[in-house]
Amino acid sequence: MKVVVIYSGGMDSFTVLHRAIKTGHEVLAVSFNYGQRHNKELDYARRVCAEAGVVHDVVDITAMQSLMSNSSLMANSAEDIPEGHYAAENMKSTVVPNRNMILISLAIGYAVNEGASEVWYGAHSGDHTIYPDCRPEFVEAMQAVSLLANFEPVKVVAPYLYDDKIVILRDGLDMGLDYGQTWTCYNGREKACGKCGSCVERLEAFTLNNAQDPLEYEA
Amino acid sequence: MKVVVIYSGGMDSFTVLHRAIKTGHEVLAVSFNYGQRHNKELDYARRVCAEAGVVHDVVDITAMQSLMSNSSLMANSAEDIPEGHYAAENMKSTVVPNRNMILISLAIGYAVNEGASEVWYGAHSGDHTIYPDCRPEFVEAMQAVSLLANFEPVKVVAPYLYDDKIVILRDGLDMGLDYGQTWTCYNGREKACGKCGSCVERLEAFTLNNAQDPLEYEA
Repeated sequence: MKVVVIYSGGMDSFTVLHRAIKTGHEVLAVSFNYGQRHNKELDYARRVCAEAGVVHDVVDITAMQSLMSNSSLMANSAEDIPEGHYAAENMKSTVVPNRNMILISLAIGYAVNEGASEVWYGAHSGDHTIYPDCRPEFVEAMQAVSLLANFEPVKVVAPYLYDDKIVILRDGLDMGLDYGQTWTCYNGREKACGKCGSCVERLEAFTLNNAQDPLEYEA
Repeated sequence: MKVVVIYSGGMDSFTVLHRAIKTGHEVLAVSFNYGQRHNKELDYARRVCAEAGVVHDVVDITAMQSLMSNSSLMANSAEDIPEGHYAAENMKSTVVPNRNMILISLAIGYAVNEGASEVWYGAHSGDHTIYPDCRPEFVEAMQAVSLLANFEPVKVVAPYLYDDKIVILRDGLDMGLDYGQTWTCYNGREKACGKCGSCVERLEAFTLNNAQDPLEYEA
């Protein structure tokens, strides 16, 4: 089956990508440049796809920024990125309004264009309380609308919807994946900061899997 | 109430825009440049908003083209635009995959960013058989997902969902609107062609309202 995978270059979508390949699907990967503060994740994504021989499109939707200037993930924002463990209040400012609906909608359009029948993305249970557009209700509602929106029904699949980052990492390690090929840090410096919410959660997932993160850290 | 109106510059969304203004809403208009063959509609949209004192954003999402190369509405397509009255087979090639879900998703993000509670768009009954993403089921499903996707629920409103173009035009004429300020022709020449599906339907709507289209035509 032909499937489109929304692939940011981070560890969750990296695992989703390889889960789709491992399942035997013909995979088309799509990444979005939506005005993140840095493009390091996208560089990682490009390398991984090139090595895996996966068709990869990077779509520049930075023009979206003119509509959504209030998020600290956007490059034109002056706000500092919050440090420490994720928490709703802390991370609310990193929410790009309606991000997943926008990215999934674009991926569905791509799927229709390419004759792919599914769009996969990396929603997981760790994000349920922080991001409304990572919750099961949202995924189900996107499913429903996606089956209606075009002549060709496209299924929205979140293979790790009920798993947390620890389980996702375990699945990836079981597949023999090299997480040195992923970038999750919110900062775009040479080494990962080890302090932002994303680094803290990543390191915690490795610890809980009794594994060593191959990535280099500043601290 | 603050509402976002998806405004292409064509006659349907022009009427939607003025219906929202007339209802007493604070209106934010948004147009999308998604790689249409010509930008004439957008020029009309800019002028109308400037005259009406409506905040207007034109968002360039032409990068989307790299994902969706199979539609004849796109500037990079070699296919000819079909002539004559709309018919499913005839017009299928003018469908941009998943267009309305994409545009509405972006408009919802904009609404969240601006604290607007509704997104209005011009779906109408004349398009129900041709475009799946203009049907009531689609609008209801978008409603459902839009109320779930963000901390701030946004309502999707299609005020003319059960009306055809003739009724929309009647409502606009009753509001005293000047349809010389709208462009609907698929071709971007100086005068409207009078032959494409869009022109044929427009002229028919004027005839059935016993009104004269103020626009100039080639034929």
